Amino acid sequence: MQSSTLTVKTAKGSYPITVARGALSRVGTLFDLSRRVLIVTDEGVPAKYAEAVKQASLFPTLVTLPTGEGTKSLACFEGLLSVMLKEGFTRRDCVVAVGGGVIGDLAGFVASASMRGIDFYNLPTTLLSQVDSSIGGKVAVNLDGIKNAVGAFYPPRAVVIDPDVLKTLPRRQIASGLAEALKMSVTHDEALFSLFEKREAERRLDEVIVASLKIKKSVVEADETESGLRRVLNFGHTVGHGIEARAGVSEEENDARASGLYHGECVALGMLPMCAPRVRARILPILSALGLPTECTLPKDAVLDAVMHDKKAEENGIGAVLVDEIGAFRLETLLREDFTARIRDAFPKMK
Amino acid sequence: MQSSTLTVKTAKGSYPITVARGALSRVGTLFDLSRRVLIVTDEGVPAKYAEAVKQASLFPTLVTLPTGEGTKSLACFEGLLSVMLKEGFTRRDCVVAVGGGVIGDLAGFVASASMRGIDFYNLPTTLLSQVDSSIGGKVAVNLDGIKNAVGAFYPPRAVVIDPDVLKTLPRRQIASGLAEALKMSVTHDEALFSLFEKREAERRLDEVIVASLKIKKSVVEADETESGLRRVLNFGHTVGHGIEARAGVSEEENDARASGLYHGECVALGMLPMCAPRVRARILPILSALGLPTECTLPKDAVLDAVMHDKKAEENGIGAVLVDEIGAFRLETLLREDFTARIRDAFPKMK
Repeated sequence: MQSSTLTVKTAKGSYPITVARGALSRVGTLFDLSRRVLIVTDEGVPAKYAEAVKQASLFPTLVTLPTGEGTKSLACFEGLLSVMLKEGFTRRDCVVAVGGGVIGDLAGFVASASMRGIDFYNLPTTLLSQVDSSIGGKVAVNLDGIKNAVGAFYPPRAVVIDPDVLKTLPRRQIASGLAEALKMSVTHDEALFSLFEKREAERRLDEVIVASLKIKKSVVEADETESGLRRVLNFGHTVGHGIEARAGVSEEENDARASGLYHGECVALGMLPMCAPRVRARILPILSALGLPTECTLPKDAVLDAVMHDKKAEENGIGAVLVDEIGAFRLETLLREDFTARIRDAFPKMK
Repeated sequence: MQSSTLTVKTAKGSYPITVARGALSRVGTLFDLSRRVLIVTDEGVPAKYAEAVKQASLFPTLVTLPTGEGTKSLACFEGLLSVMLKEGFTRRDCVVAVGGGVIGDLAGFVASASMRGIDFYNLPTTLLSQVDSSIGGKVAVNLDGIKNAVGAFYPPRAVVIDPDVLKTLPRRQIASGLAEALKMSVTHDEALFSLFEKREAERRLDEVIVASLKIKKSVVEADETESGLRRVLNFGHTVGHGIEARAGVSEEENDARASGLYHGECVALGMLPMCAPRVRARILPILSALGLPTECTLPKDAVLDAVMHDKKAEENGIGAVLVDEIGAFRLETLLREDFTARIRDAFPKMK
């Protein structure tokens, strides 16, 4: 596959997602960089990617932030907005994100708020952000330890996905991104799931990316501002976030030696208690083959506490996405005891 | 007139504006306060107004901020968001602004960003905010001395205007609000203008409010995100902002003894250079009768520098709204020399 373009419809228009190898080297032909351009990247992203955007821009301002979740802060938000004011940005200028989910979420929120909204372009450079966070228009920063506590629904003007950038990613990070793609296949796409079962996903990344984007596109178009259906994307995330909160998520997205779990690894684990046993039995060998975790040994009550305190928690239980067979799902409200039983079933080694 | 309701259409739905004397005392019947409610007000607003909302709320959190433009800051934005997190606000809770434009703009931006957007209600308590800033969905804070540098287009769920609250406003502030209403009549509504000419505006505030809201509604519905037509609302503001920047705007919106000019006073002055002489001749006696300024004695070059450095400045001149006859306008791009000639013509005493 050489190149593929999807169009995502939003309440106010639409935006294209281009998936094409080598796209980064011709980014100036894909959207208008003949203006002031704030390029936001982080230290973990190979510098040549942001440099390619800089070369193609008329008046570039490049800001390289520290790697990690700590960058998704109101302090960085304010810092970038100040830089834009100092550089004389107007409403006709733009912001380009070159990085993973942290950079895309931060830069997108900056673009949404700068002069009440200027053009935003997202060039995701991790598999996780390519299959997931770069599409759907959710942008945010964290506050007081709460993930995505402050943000907006702000669609990009365009997303450019160059799978060539994945060549520089360590395998562990590829696997973390594949976990999100696998998650989408489990609820929506038997064909994509069978690509995983045939152990072909790693070899056919372009196809996995496009198939995942198609699923996410269909969901976000139906529910742009997360009022209902979009909850299905939280499959694996409710328990996953509980595990994240207890295990600690790696701050070094691009450093496979870092301690803690990757987001995709937590999602991989988080899916297991939400599936019927026969579905779980099909997922487990896929996780093993990808080097993703299959067992959680954290203290059960600690994880459950974190699940129940998650911001999605509701007074009468928590909305959960359950899968009884590959390619389908149902939404159900679960109480703490339901989660306890499911977690015990999926993770027999958990204390 | 007892009560009047307008419905403003937006890209994603619509919201009602209720204009009714005594509305504040029955606010609990106008929208759902049976949840967590962040009530934002300032020290210049009579405490009983926010107290009325607090009494009607199931779980109220009342925050009273210092009066003045300094409150429209990212620091207050973050402070309010932190309070909401501490109080356990969820996506189903809401924010209510009780105050003038500063409070409405700040609280609206907080609501827009909290968990990517929760319900926002605006109860404007100054005439200026009742006729202008409470409608249209523009919310923002200032940054690095630039007004509204950071914000969003985020329509409220409802606006409740209780003209009874104007009884506690000093006359100078009423006049400042009337200046914005007068501005709208000059470009759009000869009937409203003749109310001013007959010196009946102060006596018939409810009608002035509703007529002004109808004009603003028609403009913002046609151009929600300020891409074109909405520029007409800047009539009087381009030069007005230049005067504001040089004269200093009063920080004490509710204190008539404060130094500096009020926003409406700057707009009153800013209209004059943008009108044909025969239109100006009809506006001047209205300004005098309302106690609004009619002459500007600031240094001309200083005001012009501020006009040209305003964020609306464009490379090839500045878009201006010009009025040749009451009730009509035209958009034109003016160069510095055009502004110089017009300012000289309108303010002969200017040095």
